[in-house]
Amino acid sequence: MPLPSEFYELAKRLNNWGRWGEADEIGTLNLITDEVVREAAATVAVGKRVPLALPLHQDGVQTGVIPGRINPLHTMVAINVELFGPGTVATSDDIVTMGLQAGTHWDGLSHASHGGKLYNGRPAESITAQSRSAFNGVEKAGHIVSRGVLLDVARARGVDRLEGDHAVTPEDLEAAEELARVTVRPGDIVLVRTGQIQRFLAGDKHAYAHPSPGLSIRTPEWFHARDVAAVANDTLTFEIFPPEITDLWMPVHALDLVEMGMPQGQNWNLEELSAVCAEERRYAFFLAAMPEPFVGGTGTPVAPVAIL
Amino acid sequence: MPLPSEFYELAKRLNNWGRWGEADEIGTLNLITDEVVREAAATVAVGKRVPLALPLHQDGVQTGVIPGRINPLHTMVAINVELFGPGTVATSDDIVTMGLQAGTHWDGLSHASHGGKLYNGRPAESITAQSRSAFNGVEKAGHIVSRGVLLDVARARGVDRLEGDHAVTPEDLEAAEELARVTVRPGDIVLVRTGQIQRFLAGDKHAYAHPSPGLSIRTPEWFHARDVAAVANDTLTFEIFPPEITDLWMPVHALDLVEMGMPQGQNWNLEELSAVCAEERRYAFFLAAMPEPFVGGTGTPVAPVAIL
Amino acid sequence: MPLPSEFYELAKRLNNWGRWGEADEIGTLNLITDEVVREAAATVAVGKRVPLALPLHQDGVQTGVIPGRINPLHTMVAINVELFGPGTVATSDDIVTMGLQAGTHWDGLSHASHGGKLYNGRPAESITAQSRSAFNGVEKAGHIVSRGVLLDVARARGVDRLEGDHAVTPEDLEAAEELARVTVRPGDIVLVRTGQIQRFLAGDKHAYAHPSPGLSIRTPEWFHARDVAAVANDTLTFEIFPPEITDLWMPVHALDLVEMGMPQGQNWNLEELSAVCAEERRYAFFLAAMPEPFVGGTGTPVAPVAIL
Amino acid sequence: MPLPSEFYELAKRLNNWGRWGEADEIGTLNLITDEVVREAAATVAVGKRVPLALPLHQDGVQTGVIPGRINPLHTMVAINVELFGPGTVATSDDIVTMGLQAGTHWDGLSHASHGGKLYNGRPAESITAQSRSAFNGVEKAGHIVSRGVLLDVARARGVDRLEGDHAVTPEDLEAAEELARVTVRPGDIVLVRTGQIQRFLAGDKHAYAHPSPGLSIRTPEWFHARDVAAVANDTLTFEIFPPEITDLWMPVHALDLVEMGMPQGQNWNLEELSAVCAEERRYAFFLAAMPEPFVGGTGTPVAPVAIL
Repeated sequence: MPLPSEFYELAKRLNNWGRWGEADEIGTLNLITDEVVREAAATVAVGKRVPLALPLHQDGVQTGVIPGRINPLHTMVAINVELFGPGTVATSDDIVTMGLQAGTHWDGLSHASHGGKLYNGRPAESITAQSRSAFNGVEKAGHIVSRGVLLDVARARGVDRLEGDHAVTPEDLEAAEELARVTVRPGDIVLVRTGQIQRFLAGDKHAYAHPSPGLSIRTPEWFHARDVAAVANDTLTFEIFPPEITDLWMPVHALDLVEMGMPQGQNWNLEELSAVCAEERRYAFFLAAMPEPFVGGTGTPVAPVAIL
Repeated sequence: MPLPSEFYELAKRLNNWGRWGEADEIGTLNLITDEVVREAAATVAVGKRVPLALPLHQDGVQTGVIPGRINPLHTMVAINVELFGPGTVATSDDIVTMGLQAGTHWDGLSHASHGGKLYNGRPAESITAQSRSAFNGVEKAGHIVSRGVLLDVARARGVDRLEGDHAVTPEDLEAAEELARVTVRPGDIVLVRTGQIQRFLAGDKHAYAHPSPGLSIRTPEWFHARDVAAVANDTLTFEIFPPEITDLWMPVHALDLVEMGMPQGQNWNLEELSAVCAEERRYAFFLAAMPEPFVGGTGTPVAPVAIL
Repeated sequence: MPLPSEFYELAKRLNNWGRWGEADEIGTLNLITDEVVREAAATVAVGKRVPLALPLHQDGVQTGVIPGRINPLHTMVAINVELFGPGTVATSDDIVTMGLQAGTHWDGLSHASHGGKLYNGRPAESITAQSRSAFNGVEKAGHIVSRGVLLDVARARGVDRLEGDHAVTPEDLEAAEELARVTVRPGDIVLVRTGQIQRFLAGDKHAYAHPSPGLSIRTPEWFHARDVAAVANDTLTFEIFPPEITDLWMPVHALDLVEMGMPQGQNWNLEELSAVCAEERRYAFFLAAMPEPFVGGTGTPVAPVAIL
Repeated sequence: MPLPSEFYELAKRLNNWGRWGEADEIGTLNLITDEVVREAAATVAVGKRVPLALPLHQDGVQTGVIPGRINPLHTMVAINVELFGPGTVATSDDIVTMGLQAGTHWDGLSHASHGGKLYNGRPAESITAQSRSAFNGVEKAGHIVSRGVLLDVARARGVDRLEGDHAVTPEDLEAAEELARVTVRPGDIVLVRTGQIQRFLAGDKHAYAHPSPGLSIRTPEWFHARDVAAVANDTLTFEIFPPEITDLWMPVHALDLVEMGMPQGQNWNLEELSAVCAEERRYAFFLAAMPEPFVGGTGTPVAPVAIL
């Protein structure tokens, strides 16, 4: 079943293939220039740090619905081993097995494909079991730091959290911009708060997973117009799920990752940040959110920190 | 065999147990105050970012000598799966199994113990297979960002890399400070460059592992005097290996992690940073190096970035 | 809270510590002599083979209730790789991560301890993260083949499957022996069918897990009297769960594994075997059920086959 | 580069595609009939059991040369955990991550492909990351038990072990048959001893890996003529390595697995069996070597036992 023409019209308007050269593998991260970073650092007024990652353990957000994407299984291979004989200094060592997209993570540009293509026209079949993503792997980014802007849609709408059927629209983003008294600009990383993660924090993983509020199919064009570098939110699915248009599944993934080449962040805990931004009356900050450089990774765990 | 009295005298002078309260689990990271972070951000003059992590893949630095600490085994569980039927948007998903201390990493405070004790007097037996580190786990830190200072000992000594039997002394650190024209101050994260990682980058893992230059048993006292928050370098063993004092194995681990409660970073690639700092004539910068919040982790992979 | 005196009295009567020497690590498997195996082979009349293992995949019997014991996560590291150049013979290769006791398995003798002791008086603390079970590991058995006897308790009671609160008693076992027209004898491996696995096969893992029929605390003495080599059944918990005696959890594990040194099998699919035995009117057969020799393993997956 | 015509001529003569129907997924295992198993059981004269698996641990036969195929990493997730409160019965639980073909194993029929085809003409692309082998997976076999015959080529040639450049020929197999005073017949599982595994047992994994004696490209035709069900030996590579014909890599894999549909066993320890057979003057026995039923597996660990 082909995707609907509406999708293709949107895709055409947003498409960034070739924009940074045929060899490009990092897409909108190109928009984070030295100048952007310099100005991002200048937003640090207090030095207050707010971590945005969920803890990594076996009782994470995954429910088994996404096959194979297991929560971290964390085991010990050495506990207080006196490697050099009794009475010597002892060490402990641990092992993890996990889905790279199991917890708070970035979707890399190779996470999605459609029509047999990845971002920048790379063939989808370049992803293989033996070498993972030959193109657009998460290790290519090197680092992700920039100005972060919290668009607190839930707060702007005067609710604790959006309902499960709420598609976050460009109008919602603009209302949140207004609340934030910040204009999103090129190279920014936008954090969109829905409040949905409260469901997980309250212990209900299934309610967290879906139905879930999330980004509308209309938002990629808005991000494209603003030349945003990356977008993250506090949901499992990133986009509204189930989708707005019947049988058009994951259109935002396709538009963001494949057409625009823009990384997406999921399962970011924005609750404390929401409180801090409201209190400080500042919604722009320095954001550090470096991918772990898994060679050929289609995604990566991340431990983001916002610094105000 | 008990540790020598020399060790205990040093330990006594450096000990930070109780300094931040009996409940403290993060040690010298307490020294990174809002003010330290604010001033760290102010060092960003250009916006230039230098990543410091080695790529994560199966051909990493581990040789099998440390049992169980395997290099990342990275596999795919989904390649271009059209989850919602033929022709729909496709996704790919990956899995990793790895030692948390296999690549570029932080040693958490629970990584080492001696005399049955962890940092702040916690019992070593609080580490178990089922719950990992009940105390001092890497998830407690939340985030690690501060001012970073590169002490380029190799450059200060006019060599590409230190020899395998070179113990980096306080005098070496001070010579590097002089080269850097920076005074290390409370809350700084010090990066000590030996150049040893060139051996790994040149393809010889065994030569990289040992003999290895590294920190002398005399350096913890220097770091303590300066109230440094954390120290990382470009070696597998962190401290000189084999050790300076016969049969006194891993004394620096014991002093830094257990007595002082100061995290150590290993396998950091400081080569590009060395070149950039020399060119920019600046050795202080903003450093973001957040631990992945593995609950109860004794260590964590990290993807540090220096921003000048 | 100490175990009740009833438990200790039973334990005393069943105890096999020292029976096969102080160095023994395989317990009742000593009862499988060459003669037993020879006679077991002589039971093969038709050559019909009935496999008893559940398939190994991510949708296995584990529900997450037992922390860490994950269902098999099976991934590919190579798919049709032409290792020696284009057009050459291609190979595929796979990886698994799993709990050794996740599916159809044997509990090894080190799986349970009480009062700080393992089978044959070994200290429980001999199990460590770095070396697993120093004593009584599953690799010690080497092989498990013997005469198998199906005691089809469900069929003997005229039901498809026993109710969740049914404790299988010695009287049940004897009624099943009568149905089978077989007398259990030294060295036999007894398979006890409750029918409970039908719940899993019907798709309800939670109902399968508990409440579950299973062996009564009175059965170890019966197995001891008959000098059985090993016992397996078609439940997750092996023994009745929740237990018969309030606050006496897993007494059968303690009696079988620790006191007697008798391996237990769980999650064995006995449904086809039940039909075949009824049709053939024979309940004794050759059973091959070799442990995978994981060094220091406290359990092992097994792919048993009954041969009639 | 196409395979040489010699290969295709051989392939044509051996091809079993369609022989057991278009839907067949187990190939020559079809030759193990009830009668074969019955007669196999009748070979048990003493009841003596000889295990043939190498121990499973991190120091196994893999050297890292085959990417991703890691030796078993075996960790604990629970050590003497008193799940139901202090003083209650305690349990221990373990986890493994390993290549399914890392140790003593069976190659499943989907392990090799050539010209885009698997056994019975299935498309090679039916193997995917998400579902592994849709066809010919190791779980299809269900069980492998039959008469085993040891062809002790090393002993027949009067040497401890064959040299690294020795290709085992049909003439070698017939000499070993003569030594054994057994005629290989339909449904047999043939174990070919080279003695090469002594190199591993002596601690030299690299010498074990290659150069390695192994089966000649001429042997598949011999196995085909005898209608053998499966073949295993005591090498890493199964066939002679480097190969007999320049640039024709792994032809025996292609002929056995793809053309004939005959499982291959590798890394079987035949040393004790060789001694026992020589002493007993019997080379035919009952062999149980059940695959672990990994759904879609291209291979499986196995713990074979020979019973004389």
